[in-house]
Amino acid sequence: MSKNNKGLLIVLSGPSGCGKGTMVAELLKRGDCAVSVSATTRQPREGEIDGTHYYFLSKEEFQQRIDNDGLLEYAEYCGNYYGTPRAEVDRLRAEGKHVILEIEVQGALQVKKRCPEAILVFTVPPTVSELSRRLHKRGTETDEVIEKRIAQFQKELPFVPEYDYVILNDALEDAVADFASVIRLELMRPAYVDLSHLEEKK
Amino acid sequence: MSKNNKGLLIVLSGPSGCGKGTMVAELLKRGDCAVSVSATTRQPREGEIDGTHYYFLSKEEFQQRIDNDGLLEYAEYCGNYYGTPRAEVDRLRAEGKHVILEIEVQGALQVKKRCPEAILVFTVPPTVSELSRRLHKRGTETDEVIEKRIAQFQKELPFVPEYDYVILNDALEDAVADFASVIRLELMRPAYVDLSHLEEKK
Repeated sequence: MSKNNKGLLIVLSGPSGCGKGTMVAELLKRGDCAVSVSATTRQPREGEIDGTHYYFLSKEEFQQRIDNDGLLEYAEYCGNYYGTPRAEVDRLRAEGKHVILEIEVQGALQVKKRCPEAILVFTVPPTVSELSRRLHKRGTETDEVIEKRIAQFQKELPFVPEYDYVILNDALEDAVADFASVIRLELMRPAYVDLSHLEEKK
Repeated sequence: MSKNNKGLLIVLSGPSGCGKGTMVAELLKRGDCAVSVSATTRQPREGEIDGTHYYFLSKEEFQQRIDNDGLLEYAEYCGNYYGTPRAEVDRLRAEGKHVILEIEVQGALQVKKRCPEAILVFTVPPTVSELSRRLHKRGTETDEVIEKRIAQFQKELPFVPEYDYVILNDALEDAVADFASVIRLELMRPAYVDLSHLEEKK
């Protein structure tokens, strides 16, 4: 029933501790979704494979990608560049895969600018204290880092109106279902539904 | 969690035999949805109550509503006018009810023009022969009327791209679920989600 065989482009943002990883992992099980491999100028760590974990580029190669509008979004972090290659996303979508990008707000807004049909989803915790509780429970970060993450999340809140959907992650299972519903509903857009077989035979 | 207490405005179109009645009836059971009472210039039939079945208006009163932009849509049918009073819809939405209007394409497009936040949903049968089968099964119309209904449906198809969502009614149960999903997803729009409790305390 789909006339537009091109997959969707979905951007997922939100603080750590809101189940983004699980939401993406659950969708990847379906077979019609994919994540794209990012490009970076940082050195490969032991065991990291070019084209699997990242596309490892020199600074010159990365700059060339920027100049050729070959990145849907990019950012500098600790002296290295990270970005999403447009060609990679286009290739997956042309195969009919719904591409999911898990990126922060500034990157998400860059994607929307370069690719207006992108669907932006922001996931939020029920409360700040619950977010704090979840981050502490993971036990991977110091109190100071957790404070910073919460402050960062609160700085991102004013950008939520630029998103298409907000998923409240109260129960992880519901958040996963909501994320799947976004895809289901976006595929009910007229551009995605082939009605040609219903037309009058000439 | 809803900051916008105003209910949604949802317009449902599509041919008879696609479960529109059941879709609306199922949502009305929820308690947060409502249908609005239409206005008409035709004479009340026996047992019809003003304000319940219709608002019965004189032609002058109806014309006045048109002139004052008091109707979200209207049409003439067999010499009588029928329309959707804007005040009625506004009142229900202000109470937090999601108002569902079951109207044909021209009316739906009028609503979208006067109320751009309206969500337009078009329901379609899997095939034309299935639509024909369903209409015959009801046994309420002659073959000639059924032919006309199918031709009318096919004339409406070019307007489907103006709609927000297309619901394929293959199995009625799924169509009802899809219709409920539309409401659920539209309430996940940032305008409907209150995040103020997550903001940094000043």
